[in-house]
Amino acid sequence: MLPRSVEKFIEVFSKLPSLGPRLATRLAFYLLGGDRTTLKGLSEALQDIQSLDRCPQCFFIKENSRDLCPVCSDKERNNGVVAIVEKETDLIALEKTGRFRGNYLILGDLPERGVLESGQKLRLQSLKERVKKDHDGKIKEIVVAVSPNSFGDFMVESIRQEFKDLTEKVTRLGRGIPTGGEIEFADEETLGQALERRV
Amino acid sequence: MLPRSVEKFIEVFSKLPSLGPRLATRLAFYLLGGDRTTLKGLSEALQDIQSLDRCPQCFFIKENSRDLCPVCSDKERNNGVVAIVEKETDLIALEKTGRFRGNYLILGDLPERGVLESGQKLRLQSLKERVKKDHDGKIKEIVVAVSPNSFGDFMVESIRQEFKDLTEKVTRLGRGIPTGGEIEFADEETLGQALERRV
Repeated sequence: MLPRSVEKFIEVFSKLPSLGPRLATRLAFYLLGGDRTTLKGLSEALQDIQSLDRCPQCFFIKENSRDLCPVCSDKERNNGVVAIVEKETDLIALEKTGRFRGNYLILGDLPERGVLESGQKLRLQSLKERVKKDHDGKIKEIVVAVSPNSFGDFMVESIRQEFKDLTEKVTRLGRGIPTGGEIEFADEETLGQALERRV
Repeated sequence: MLPRSVEKFIEVFSKLPSLGPRLATRLAFYLLGGDRTTLKGLSEALQDIQSLDRCPQCFFIKENSRDLCPVCSDKERNNGVVAIVEKETDLIALEKTGRFRGNYLILGDLPERGVLESGQKLRLQSLKERVKKDHDGKIKEIVVAVSPNSFGDFMVESIRQEFKDLTEKVTRLGRGIPTGGEIEFADEETLGQALERRV
């Protein structure tokens, strides 16, 4: 009953994360009901991001007219400190704190089984080569800024092994009660860590 | 820090219903992280629906190569019965039941104050003219299939007034306990209606 193009729209949009067929249908009719400016704006936005590529150093997205992303090309930053994160959005979250002035390496989501994919291994390899080439074989610090769970713990150990001659230290993010969090509702592990790491 | 095109993407997508900046950001990186086929598919889907227009009779969307939508052009249907609905998705929901074989008029979301907008008045006017022209001035039934609330009640009364010489009857959807619903949790109004309309 629906025009083929609307069915197609619902099909492709419902595959996006957090969308699903119901919301995709709603979106379709929202767009068809509004003026064509919104529809055109979305269409252009989708086209414009198609020309982006990745920073060869940290693997964050960048304009393809530039060699490096804004973080890696910023000479003011301390490139002897590298934070390894899973996702672009983790990098953005760390940048928003304004408290980290090092560089990054985006690794991609850690696989559930803990074994890195070949693409992720290549990214770590590229960091090793960069350390050897640009830093006389040793940087100051690697911050493994991955989410604190068993995969994350495993990851920290792997990095510690793999980079043992290439960095002075491997650190991870502090663990404890989040700001605004309530002690009463903190799980035992978090509370235990908060006790051990009290300041 | 983000490329301009990504900021633009987040800006336009976060204005869509149920999306917001957080999900729009997640979508952007999801699309940038995946292969370009998804991105292209979405872009094409958005372009393809731009050429759709509205059925001049019921105001449902239709291919612009056709004169009427599939429902209105279906000769097997009883066009002496017209269901007035608010949204396209309401029409789809009614069609899915397979139990309505009449035609439709999509009115658009009822305004909160109960006063119809000029576009909605024009749609009702077009139905009146159709009744006069194609049905010798009278159809069998108008089903006011709007959500059961005070605006809906008001709407039913307006339609009853406006079409009093143009339709044999004006009906509305039955009210009562939804299938699978529990009597214990039904609100008083619903339960009252269910009692009054017991079958």
